[in-house]
Parts: sequence; C-alpha cells; structure tokens
Amino acid sequence: MNWTSAMVSPAAPRRFLEPFHGKALMPPPVWLMRQAGRYLPEYRAVRAKAGSFLDLCYNPALAAEVTLQPVRRYGFDAAILFSDILVVPDALGQRVQFAEGEGPRLDPLRSQRDLARLNEDATRPKFALVHETVSRLRQELPHDTALIGFCGAPWTVATYMVGGQGSSDQSDARQWAYSDPEGFQRLIDILVDVSIEYLSGQVKAGADALQIFDSWAGSLPDDQFRRWVVAPTKRLVAALKAEHPRVPVIGFPRGAGVLAPAYAMETGVDGVSCDTAMPLAFISSQLSGKTVVQGNLDPLLLVTGGHALERRVAEIKAALAGNPFIFNLGHGIVPETPPENVGRLVDLVRGSHR
Amino acid sequence: MNWTSAMVSPAAPRRFLEPFHGKALMPPPVWLMRQAGRYLPEYRAVRAKAGSFLDLCYNPALAAEVTLQPVRRYGFDAAILFSDILVVPDALGQRVQFAEGEGPRLDPLRSQRDLARLNEDATRPKFALVHETVSRLRQELPHDTALIGFCGAPWTVATYMVGGQGSSDQSDARQWAYSDPEGFQRLIDILVDVSIEYLSGQVKAGADALQIFDSWAGSLPDDQFRRWVVAPTKRLVAALKAEHPRVPVIGFPRGAGVLAPAYAMETGVDGVSCDTAMPLAFISSQLSGKTVVQGNLDPLLLVTGGHALERRVAEIKAALAGNPFIFNLGHGIVPETPPENVGRLVDLVRGSHR
Repeated sequence: MNWTSAMVSPAAPRRFLEPFHGKALMPPPVWLMRQAGRYLPEYRAVRAKAGSFLDLCYNPALAAEVTLQPVRRYGFDAAILFSDILVVPDALGQRVQFAEGEGPRLDPLRSQRDLARLNEDATRPKFALVHETVSRLRQELPHDTALIGFCGAPWTVATYMVGGQGSSDQSDARQWAYSDPEGFQRLIDILVDVSIEYLSGQVKAGADALQIFDSWAGSLPDDQFRRWVVAPTKRLVAALKAEHPRVPVIGFPRGAGVLAPAYAMETGVDGVSCDTAMPLAFISSQLSGKTVVQGNLDPLLLVTGGHALERRVAEIKAALAGNPFIFNLGHGIVPETPPENVGRLVDLVRGSHR
Repeated sequence: MNWTSAMVSPAAPRRFLEPFHGKALMPPPVWLMRQAGRYLPEYRAVRAKAGSFLDLCYNPALAAEVTLQPVRRYGFDAAILFSDILVVPDALGQRVQFAEGEGPRLDPLRSQRDLARLNEDATRPKFALVHETVSRLRQELPHDTALIGFCGAPWTVATYMVGGQGSSDQSDARQWAYSDPEGFQRLIDILVDVSIEYLSGQVKAGADALQIFDSWAGSLPDDQFRRWVVAPTKRLVAALKAEHPRVPVIGFPRGAGVLAPAYAMETGVDGVSCDTAMPLAFISSQLSGKTVVQGNLDPLLLVTGGHALERRVAEIKAALAGNPFIFNLGHGIVPETPPENVGRLVDLVRGSHR
C-alpha cells in the first residue's frame, strides 16, 4: 500500500514542517545529517548482515530499519531516508562500488561518448526499491515525525560519475565542464531528469520534505556555480514544485559561502542547510528570515562533547532565534561520535533557552 | 654575500610592489602560484637529479634554478622562492617525507605531550639553507623582478603536523583544537615563533614581499577561524612589521569566503590572495580598494586554454580594474598545464584592456 503525503499531513502538522509555514519555533525542530550510521551499534549490526552497502540501500526492510534507529533512540523531529546519492548513477547503469573504508569507486565517464553507457529507462526497478523503503517508513514512523527524502544535486553526483571517486577538488568534472560545456550539460540534464522522477516518487511514497545535497558546490568559480549548481537545481525544484507544491525542498550547497544567498533566492528552494564554515552573523543577516535556515553545528563538537558543545549550541540558537530555523549539523555525523553525545545535543537543543 | 632589501629596492621600484603603494596598474603585475613546478620540462629535469623533494628545497643552487625557470620563460613580475610549507615542521625535527605522487607523510603529533619532539633551536641550519637560496635569487634575478618569500600559516602547517598528511577536512587538528585548546595553542605558538624567524630571515636575505599560505583556512567555523587563523596570523604579521615595516605581506586564506574581509582587516596583511571560488562581485565590493587584491583565475582554465580562458581573464581584469590588483591564479598551477597556455595567459593579462 502507498501512503501519500496528502493522506498523512493535514490533521496535526508535524513540528519539523512548521518553519516552512513561516513559524519560528523555539526550541527549533532538530534532526542530524547522517543520523543513521556507523556511530550507532544497532546500525553496525544491521550493516554486518546486509551484504554490500548498496545492497543495504536497496533492501526496503533493512533500509527502513536503520532509518528508524536514531528516531527511536533520540526522538528526532524528522527521519531521513537511509540511502546514498550514488544510487542514481548506479540505477543509470554506471558501475558503482563501495570498498570498505575507501569510499565509492565508479567506472568514470570521461566524455560525451561515455554517456551512451547511461540508460534513463533502466532506473525504475532500483528507484522502486527506494520508494518502497519510503512507503514502509511512512507507515512505521510515529505520526508526528516528518520523513525527509533526498538526492544528490546534479553537480555533486556528476563529480563522482566523472572522477570515478571522491576528490578534494573535483578537477575531472570541472575540467570536462570547461573543455566541453555542451557535453557536460548533457550529463547534468540527464541527472536533473532522473532526479525529478526519483524525488517525485519519494514524495508519492510518503516523503514530507526533500533535501538536495550539493556537497561539492564550493569548488566552483562564480560563473560555473551559476551554471552547474544554481541552474540545474532551479530546474529540479521547479519540476518538483509543479507536481508537489506543498512539499518543502531544502538545498545544501556545501561550501557555497558568499554565494549561498544567491542560491537561496535563485533556485526556488524553501530552505538552505548551512555548512559548518558559514559564519553565524552571515547566516543571520543574509539568510535568516529570507529562507528557512538549517544548520550548522560542527560535527566534530559531537565527538568532543562537554562544555565546548554546550557553548556552541547556545550560540547557534541565540544567533538564529526569531526566524524559521531547524537545528542540524553543518556536515554529517562522523563514525567516532559517542552516541551519548548525540542524546546530550538533543537535550541541549530542546532545553530552556536563555 | 648577503643582499638586503634596503640595498636593492630604492632606485627603480619593482612593478610588482606598486599596488602596495596604492597604485592601480593596468595591466596589473602578474605571477602565478606554483609557477615553478612539474608542468615545466626544465623543472622535471632538475627535479630528477635532486634526490628527494626536501633535498631540492634545501639545495640553494637547484632551488634557485627552479625558481628562476618560469621567470626566464614568461617574464613574470615576481619570482616566488621555491620551497615547501613543510620545511618548518621538518626543521623543527618532525619526520617529513614526500612519497612520489602521494603527497607528504609526517609522523603525526597527537597531543601536547608530542610537542616535546619539536625543537625550536634546531631550525637554524635548515632555515639557513633556504635563506641562502633567497640570497642567490636576489643576485640572479633581473633587477625589476620582485622576489616573494613565503611560509605556511600556523593553522595550515598544524593540520599537516597533527594529521600526518593532507586530508579533506583536517579533522585531526580540528578535533585537537576542540578537545584541548590550550595544548593546541602551544603548537600554534611554536609555529608563529619559528615562522617569524623564518620569514624575517627571508627578508634579510633579499625577499621584497612575503606570502602566508593558509590553504585550509576554509574548514573552520567562525569562532575557530578567529582563534586559529586570524589571531596567529595577526601576531606573525605584527612581528614582521615591527622588524620590516616596508615589506608587504600577502595572506592567502583559501576558502575563507565570507570571512575574507574580516581576515583582511584584522590580521594586518597588506594584501589578500583570493581563491577560485571567491565571486568577483564580492571581491570587488568587499576587498578591492580596502586591501591589495590578488587572484583569482581557476588553474583548470590554464589546462583548457582557448576561448574560455580568454573570456575569464577579461572578466577578472574588468571586475578588479581601478584598484590595486595583482593578477594570479586562485590556486596553484596543476602539473597537466600545457606550458604554452601559461605564455598565452601572460599575453592576455598584459594585452590591451578593453
């Protein structure tokens, strides 16, 4: 059975969604990027029996289970679908592997000719497994917990497809974009098209909100940022809004820095997730009140814990109170995080505000 | 024999230095980060006979030769001492190795206790070799070519000393800074102290200007940025200014983004080198006219060349004309760069301005 967002959302609005209706809640709703993951022993137990990492992403029962684990433990205001941004290239037919401790490896695409290896019509069976996970989650989650679907932004996904792995400067994709912008545009267009289908299916299956992860947005000069980050995101968001006008879309243009306000205004997203390096004074003056702000605690403070964590949580809450705001990290939880520090963080976020 | 900057600078001021006297030159002076390096066949020939990479850095004859090579080929307005930011930890007694194609490897420092392995008094013999290179260069360079000395900023050097190698997020150093700020401060203080001595010696040996490379400035939240980037740089610059008030200091806080204007105003640097991702409109409105601006062409455009290179050079010149400006890249030249494209770039920078 398929739940739709229309079937579950109207009566008691989920707290996570209220900032998107203009409400400045204090304490703010809270969830954490990579809240399902290796820092949790119960995740490691499921991971150990799941086969490969992609097998886990495509196993609706297990993927739903690991999505639910941190919600059970901490009572977050939102769950985020457990999956990976490289499901999209995998579903398109590119070979994607996750070697333990080494990050992803793909057979790289190096020119427009290689695009023939991608098959947009082949994505359906794999996308269907992810959509099935979303359906299960919407049934199993507490009614007041929102469910966030996601995908990687076309630019960031392309950097892996072209580079064949993560890199510190995304030079292979950037080089292709400079030397053959029309060919690279074709790759980006394919990614926008399949991401529309992928995210729209997540909403139909029960996702209440969507997040677009653009982890490598920060490596581009301004002109390239507008072409490969802003323009494709804008087309993706517009298509989603046409089908699902009431479903909020959050963008996470990691490293966008100075260009984050332009991203917020020009892409049509409803909220911007702010990375660790974005100064609170800048978020407060340039983004807060103009879009829903999400962020931006340094995940390393969750490893340290203690007084440094307390102080920073208070600073972030103080800086961003008064406008629609969702508490989150500025990047994903790291595996070394003591689980009790995550509980402490949730208490700090929800505790009385000075 | 030792030349001093006082002995060589007064009569015909070097063109590179004029922006630091408030002059907006068009065409602007030009040099390129990593202009001496693997993209040049004559560099590879010297490198092949030099032993290890650090052997080359500590060989005054060969280090001077590779510094001069790009000046001979392209007639840059400035030479930059050929060396490496990891000379400082090496001179302090930390084991530093450069494995071919893998980047540097250091025996990592993990806590305050490990600081006992560093010996500030041991730096002199190795620093003396670098200073000897500077002396030779000042004798061999054309009189109108400026000579830039440099070091790594304390924060960036510390990230390598603590992490033991480069990383995408500098988490080891950031974690130490959170969990034991006093201990980490001691490491930073040592680096500031020896960097003062190292750079001051470069000026005494003939450097006309200095650049402080803070390649990992962009990974820090605002409060950490002020403590580990701004404050140590400010102390370093103040000490240099006390001894050498007329020698310009350029800071390169790569990735600082929104915080670059604060860096420019608070550290006391005379100029800011802007990375590739810093938008031209932001540089123009927030930095240009307030400090000497240097930058910020994407080095990957030097690989591509052609019309894309031409267009971007014109955009940068147009955006930054009218205020003191030095043309440069936003990051170092990459090894794949065709040498003829560097020549083309110099022609484009010096060609008539639309």
